[in-house]
Order: sequence, then C-alpha cells, then structure tokens
Amino acid sequence: MNWQKYVRTVTPYVPGEQPKQEKMIKLNTNECPYPPAPGVMEGVTRLNGASLRLYPDPDVGALTGGLADYHGVKKEQVFVGVGSDDVLALAFLTFFNSDRPILFPDITYSFYDVWANLYRIGYQTIPLDEDFRMRAVDYQRENGGIIFPNPNAPTGVEEAQSLIEEIVSSNTDSIVIVDEAYIDFGGTSCLSLIDRYSNLLVVRTFSKSRALAGLRIGYAIGNERLIGYLKDVRFSFNSYTMNLPAQEVGVASIVDEGYFNQCRQRIMATREWVKVELSRLGFTFPDSKGNFIFATHEQVPAAELFAFLKGEGIYVRYWQRPRIDNYLRITVGTDEEMRAFINALEGYLSKP
Amino acid sequence: MNWQKYVRTVTPYVPGEQPKQEKMIKLNTNECPYPPAPGVMEGVTRLNGASLRLYPDPDVGALTGGLADYHGVKKEQVFVGVGSDDVLALAFLTFFNSDRPILFPDITYSFYDVWANLYRIGYQTIPLDEDFRMRAVDYQRENGGIIFPNPNAPTGVEEAQSLIEEIVSSNTDSIVIVDEAYIDFGGTSCLSLIDRYSNLLVVRTFSKSRALAGLRIGYAIGNERLIGYLKDVRFSFNSYTMNLPAQEVGVASIVDEGYFNQCRQRIMATREWVKVELSRLGFTFPDSKGNFIFATHEQVPAAELFAFLKGEGIYVRYWQRPRIDNYLRITVGTDEEMRAFINALEGYLSKP
Repeated sequence: MNWQKYVRTVTPYVPGEQPKQEKMIKLNTNECPYPPAPGVMEGVTRLNGASLRLYPDPDVGALTGGLADYHGVKKEQVFVGVGSDDVLALAFLTFFNSDRPILFPDITYSFYDVWANLYRIGYQTIPLDEDFRMRAVDYQRENGGIIFPNPNAPTGVEEAQSLIEEIVSSNTDSIVIVDEAYIDFGGTSCLSLIDRYSNLLVVRTFSKSRALAGLRIGYAIGNERLIGYLKDVRFSFNSYTMNLPAQEVGVASIVDEGYFNQCRQRIMATREWVKVELSRLGFTFPDSKGNFIFATHEQVPAAELFAFLKGEGIYVRYWQRPRIDNYLRITVGTDEEMRAFINALEGYLSKP
Repeated sequence: MNWQKYVRTVTPYVPGEQPKQEKMIKLNTNECPYPPAPGVMEGVTRLNGASLRLYPDPDVGALTGGLADYHGVKKEQVFVGVGSDDVLALAFLTFFNSDRPILFPDITYSFYDVWANLYRIGYQTIPLDEDFRMRAVDYQRENGGIIFPNPNAPTGVEEAQSLIEEIVSSNTDSIVIVDEAYIDFGGTSCLSLIDRYSNLLVVRTFSKSRALAGLRIGYAIGNERLIGYLKDVRFSFNSYTMNLPAQEVGVASIVDEGYFNQCRQRIMATREWVKVELSRLGFTFPDSKGNFIFATHEQVPAAELFAFLKGEGIYVRYWQRPRIDNYLRITVGTDEEMRAFINALEGYLSKP
C-alpha cells in the first residue's frame, strides 16, 4: 500500500454517543426535548416520493428566502448548509486562507481545531479567564481569522455585544465568525452588527432551538460579498447539498414563531430550576445561556458522576481535557427528564 | 474590505439548469424519467416528523450495511455521502494529497478540475483519442492520483475492464478513482477488481439508475483502509451529513432488485431506438452506455439546435468547450418524451 504516504491523515471529531437504548435519558448532544413545529410535522406527511427523482433546487431558494425574510436581510446575505458544521467547515475553507494563524478560545466547540487540522490552517488558542470569559484585548494580535461561539460551548457563557463589536472592529483585515448555535436560549444576537461590519459572519442552526437535528440545516448571515464567496466554494464542492426533504420541510419551521417561542421559553424555564437544584446538590457552574449547563461538583469528580449516570441510562457529555476534565455538560431536557436526573444525582451524592 | 485578499476565490461548477416550467421536457441533467421504487415511496409516507429532533446516525448504519450486503463486501468497505459529488470531493481532499499532478481525461465530468482548483491540487488532462477513448499508456507517468468516469461523461463511452486494470495495476503508488455514476445502464463494473487492488476506489450514485437525485445519496467502495481514511476526513468535516429522511428512505431502493432492473432496462431500450432515430436524422455519436447520448449533427451546429430545443421547452445540455462545442448531451427520458424530442428535431431539420 505505497499510496498511503500521500493520504491526508487526520484525527476526526468524535460526536457525542447516539445510544439506542429504551428508557434512556439523553442529555448529551444538546438536542431539543420537544418535537419540531406542527407545520414541520405536516410538511413531512406532504412529502412526495415521486419528486425525489429530480435534483433539488441547488440555490435552496425557498429556505434561503424564508430565512432572509425572517431576519430582515437580503436573500443574497443568507447561505444554507447541511447543519452548521457544514457551513462552518466551508467557511474555514473559504475565509481562513492566509498564512497567519487563526484564533479561538482554548475552551470552545471541539470541532474548530479539527477543521484547522483538516485544512492545514495554523491556529492559536486563546485562554479564557478563570470565569471562562473572553478578553477583547487577547484578540488584538495578528491573525488569519477569528472564530468563537456565543454563547460559548460547552460553558454556556454569553459575551457582551460590546466585547464582540470590539473584536470585530479591531480586526477588519480578517473574517470574524460568531457561531450562534445556542443564541435562542436567552442570548443577544450580534446580527445587528452585520450592516456595519463586512467582516462579520454569523452562523446559526436548526438543530437546537428548532428541534430539527435530524434534518441537517444550518445557515450563515453576513455581508453579500462574504456570502457570495461562500457560495462559490459550495458550488465548487457539491452542487446539490440540501436534499428535497430538508428544503421542503425546513421552511415550515421558520413560519411558526409562536411554537418556536413557546418551545425555547420552556427550555429556559427548565434550565433555571435545574440550576437551583444543582446548586443545592453542591455543583457550581457558569451562568448558562444555552440549552445546557456546564457543571462541576465540589467533592465528587465529574468522571465518576458521568460513569454513575451512564449506568442509570442517563447520558451527559464529559471531556477528558485540560481545564474542563472535572465538568459535565448537561443538556436541558423535559421537566420530567430533569427531575429524574436530579433525583438520580441526589440519591448518589447522599450516600455516605 | 481588506479581508478580501485572504479569501479562497474559485470558479464554481455550473450545474445544468433546473427550469420550473410546465410541460417542459427535461433531458439536461441525466435524471431518471421514472419514479423511485415503490418501497421508497412507502418509506416517505412512513417518515416520522417527531424523530427529526434527534441527530441522525452518524455512521449511516442501515444504508451502509444494505449496500455492503448488496455488493457482497464488508460494511467497512463502504462509504456513504451526500450524492457522489460529496463522496468525490472528499476523496479528492483525502487521496490527492501529494505534490504530483493528478491525471484525468480532457473530456470528462466537468467537476474534476473544479475540485482540483478548490483544493489547489495540480492536474494534467490527458487527451482522449479521436473516438473519445482512453489509452492506458497515457496514464503510465508520474502522478498524484487518477480519476475518470466509466462509462465516461458526457461521451457515454465505456472502457474495457482490461484497460482499467492496466491503469490500476501500473499505478500502485497512487489512488485510482473510477466514477461509475452511469454503470447501471449496460456497463461492466470494475468492483470485481477491488479485492486485488487496494488503490482502487469505485464511486456510485443513487441519482441516476435509482431515481433518487432529490435525496442526495452517493457511495464509494474500496479497500477497508482506503475507506477508513475517507471516513476520518468525513468526520473531520461534518459529523452528521446524511439526514434522517435520506437514511430511512434510501435503503428501500436497494431492496427492490426487480423494480431497479425493470427501470434501467426500459431506459436502455429507449436509448437504443433513439440512437437509430438520431442516425436517421443525420446525427453521429459514440456508442453510449449511459442514460444519455452525446450527439453531433453533420450539418447543423449544436449551439443552434440547443437554442431551438430550448425554445420548444426541451432542455438538453450544451457546453461551449474545446472539442465538444458541437455536441449535445441528451438524457434518455420516457418513450413519449423522446418521441416528442425526435419529432421536434425532425421538424426543424426538414425545413429548407
């Protein structure tokens, strides 16, 4: 196998487990515990099998137009992909193309270094402070691009608009990507900045607040020219990425604002009482604005709690990595699921 | 916009038009004129909207397993992607990673040079002979990989197994990708060679013979290690590319061998009488083993015929490129569609 020496070898991202177990409580991949909007469910029943013989719309017109209307931007400012991971991977390829290192926080979405390695992009991680917060001054150095999630993952910490604007405005030579996967759970979007800063790209997903992880829809909004470059790379990679079911069903999710708001309000309400309960049980955590809580216990190691919970059929996320190896990331499920989770923890922690 | 100097700028692939016009005859993107298998249609009606809230299986287990059984290979030898374009784009990124140029025919699928440009892979095009055929000896030179479709697109020409084996066996230092998008219309697959040659990757699609262009499913089969490298790059790009509808519905297509054979036999039968009719009208063409015919007229320029047909609501494909700018690529539709196409041509060509 002489060909092996020329293969691009990489260490892939490892997604959270997708266990197939009855009666499990799945709090490990930040999915929405409620079903998608009623219009989405209806859309699925209206899908026409016969039309699958034709290629889908390569411009993803209905979905792109729907998102443009929803956000009050031009259609040319919206780019749709196969989940926000697809959008982000293409954005790395398109925009992080200089010889200078890109910057992102040391504790962040663990796909960023994977994409950088895949595309041989140099990078520098910037340590968050002790409270898991960013400092704008750290991002005022030579760079080939900047990316961070807001709220951050897996910490849930939201940064102020003023900090984001400071970073974007002091880096007009490079693209700043703000990954707003978790913005709908109480955060303030920086979409309002895109008119002023042509170097800002905001990325969103249907996988969390819209309960459509299974449909694979993510999108980016930014300056028209920025989006144009992204589209050129997309059309140089795959002409037809969004399949017909995703295009036909996805658009119904944007229409039902009432259901959307109800759904995320429920998750936020659950999150807040879970915070109170976790405190009572001896956990500490940064104040999360995501649909998850990143918690550490004063006495019991996270690895131990993770193993115990898994044994109970309760899946949370745990990383054996510097600075965060004593934390669990707990997705906010239904009230019932979170009650069972708290009860299980309480039982375990109260044992002598 | 100082950031523009570091953007990866590319000239994207331009897919065939997807006109939305009533009563048109669409013979321009090699779609199947018949609906997908009955099991696929049933699968669509069984889709469960509520399950869309969860991430789909990142390993695409059911589809990968189904394809492995169908082709009599191990599950570890199958890689599934969002159409064969996705599979091919990832294969370029994974395997065409040396400093030496990759090789492909001068007349071929027009995405190859687009991917090479996207990833900054050097390439050398090898001229087909006057009959649009490859010569094995042309591929016995230093290279960083080889790719070609068999049957070739847009010519429809099928190369002999012996030629393919000669190319594969004389290039054990590099990966040879055979793009079998059109193999099901009378060609002989080189899948039988994968056990002997670890450097051979065979790529297939559900978009043509399986009438599922709208679902976006393509796959590759090869040596286990080859597929493993491809999976690592996939998981470094996007963890969840195949959405739930594609995974749940696609697998039904493989099961119904009877419908599949009936469908492709019909297309081949139509193709053969269309060849006779085109000859009668003064066209010449290489003998096609695809679901299309690549034809040139003795007197009338292709560009003129293309414009005339478009005016009649009949869409075929035309490229303004060296060596092929007097050819039309005509997808084989239903008998009724092809009768209308031949009648329109006959009317136009018989005018004084």
